[in-house]
Amino acid sequence: MAEASKQDLIVGVDLGGTKILAGVFTSQLKLLQTAKLTTKADRGFSSVVERIARCVLDAVDEADTSVKHVRAVGIGAPGAVDPTEGEVIFAPNLKWEKAPLKAELEKRLGVPVFAENDCNVCTLGVHEVEFKGKPRELLGIFLGTGIGAGLIIDGKLYGGFNRTAGEVGHMVLEVNGPKCGCGNQGCFEALASRIAIFREISKRIKDGGKTILTDKLVENVIEEAAEYTGIAIANLVNILSPEVVVLGGGIMDALEDEMLSIIVETAHDYAMPGTMKDVEIVASKLGDHAGITGAAVLARQHAKGS
Amino acid sequence: MAEASKQDLIVGVDLGGTKILAGVFTSQLKLLQTAKLTTKADRGFSSVVERIARCVLDAVDEADTSVKHVRAVGIGAPGAVDPTEGEVIFAPNLKWEKAPLKAELEKRLGVPVFAENDCNVCTLGVHEVEFKGKPRELLGIFLGTGIGAGLIIDGKLYGGFNRTAGEVGHMVLEVNGPKCGCGNQGCFEALASRIAIFREISKRIKDGGKTILTDKLVENVIEEAAEYTGIAIANLVNILSPEVVVLGGGIMDALEDEMLSIIVETAHDYAMPGTMKDVEIVASKLGDHAGITGAAVLARQHAKGS
Repeated sequence: MAEASKQDLIVGVDLGGTKILAGVFTSQLKLLQTAKLTTKADRGFSSVVERIARCVLDAVDEADTSVKHVRAVGIGAPGAVDPTEGEVIFAPNLKWEKAPLKAELEKRLGVPVFAENDCNVCTLGVHEVEFKGKPRELLGIFLGTGIGAGLIIDGKLYGGFNRTAGEVGHMVLEVNGPKCGCGNQGCFEALASRIAIFREISKRIKDGGKTILTDKLVENVIEEAAEYTGIAIANLVNILSPEVVVLGGGIMDALEDEMLSIIVETAHDYAMPGTMKDVEIVASKLGDHAGITGAAVLARQHAKGS
Repeated sequence: MAEASKQDLIVGVDLGGTKILAGVFTSQLKLLQTAKLTTKADRGFSSVVERIARCVLDAVDEADTSVKHVRAVGIGAPGAVDPTEGEVIFAPNLKWEKAPLKAELEKRLGVPVFAENDCNVCTLGVHEVEFKGKPRELLGIFLGTGIGAGLIIDGKLYGGFNRTAGEVGHMVLEVNGPKCGCGNQGCFEALASRIAIFREISKRIKDGGKTILTDKLVENVIEEAAEYTGIAIANLVNILSPEVVVLGGGIMDALEDEMLSIIVETAHDYAMPGTMKDVEIVASKLGDHAGITGAAVLARQHAKGS
């Protein structure tokens, strides 16, 4: 690799409740190498920061370069983030509150760090890499263990007054529906996340014993999750009128063929006339790399002037 | 009235499915006079435009002035509106599609006309007059015969890709809930609008005959409508993170004392931690005049340069 490109590297970090993934990118967003560590959130904030820094250095080392060739680091964190201060306002999965992520990571790495909410970062990555930054209004929805989203409004990431916008997972779709981890009932996340799907499958197997075909039962549960997702998208299209809705996350990556057509059909059934005109509903192709890619885009945007 | 102020008048028009209300305002948004006509939408677009123009001239005449002293006319219409062209893209209540409202009204009045969706116009009026234009993110929700909303994002009215943003009335809150006029089930509008409240009261009186106290029954139905409204607001706060949520419309104007505290409490119960920090949920005081006031604000904004 030429020395010139080495001086222009970017690292994107995807910080999750259980694992840390770091990726080294060229300034053209070509992924060179990755590294992975477990998060071990129970050891506390300082320990996690040390592990993130180690993961970044591991990835840089895998790419046969050093951190002095890294222009900036971007990181997506699972919680509400103040992107100006780089502070994690709160992240329930990590048990963090007012955690100075940017400041502490910069101390350890000696490189500018930029932080954002994880779903915002994924949405930014999809917007920039898969849509060339063109749609002015884009909604990214990520179906995994939980459900989250990010909003691009007027071409930029949108956080709202409390930097908490995009909490679509706790949109109530069925007032007396199944219990959600948040304490409410009938949240989108309680109807269509990985946890919801597994819970529903176990429940129906238990109810029906072995008298019914398990394959068909699983298919039905996944179809219903897709229908709820379609209804959630219709609600969001009615409220926000985006140009593009992109779906990502582990559930979509694994079940796109089974779910996407049902999602699109249901969304069209439920949305108001006129709201769906020329609106695209598609699955992201970034898969597991959405987080690190988006974090690299975030770092590149902010480091442009530097 | 001094000649100077007369030359700087603004007319705001609230175009509804059944009536047209026009108000003559000073440039400081002081309401001088109003006039009202029925819409008679069944007579078709040209006839309605003629009636709107007549209503504007009636209001101007009531204010003892003439249209040559009017700098601009603003109008809120019940449907999706392209504010640049002043075209009503579609308005189901009026049976209009691609109706050139601005162009036709300008022909008849000889004054610049600016058009927007009616809920957007009401939200603009509330934002400017009751909040001095300060909140960067404000959500206006209007509970009447139906339910609609307007969004202020980054200090400006937000319409989204198809100019249809704010269709909160058809957010599904209860997948298998009561039938909505739109064909879906369990929409916010089917649970908390005037039509929903009346339907529920009639149903329960019929079911219970005279064995229960009607007063208590009406109270229960109104409490439930308030709870659904609180859940809808929690959904919207989770999604959009606004600084202020303002409630208006006929139902709120009539039942603020009975509903507001339940709405606020339920919204706080259902919203995610952190999303409600310093968020205000309040009732508008503009009442019936929200539409004409907002339309006047719209006209004043656009006519500033002229």
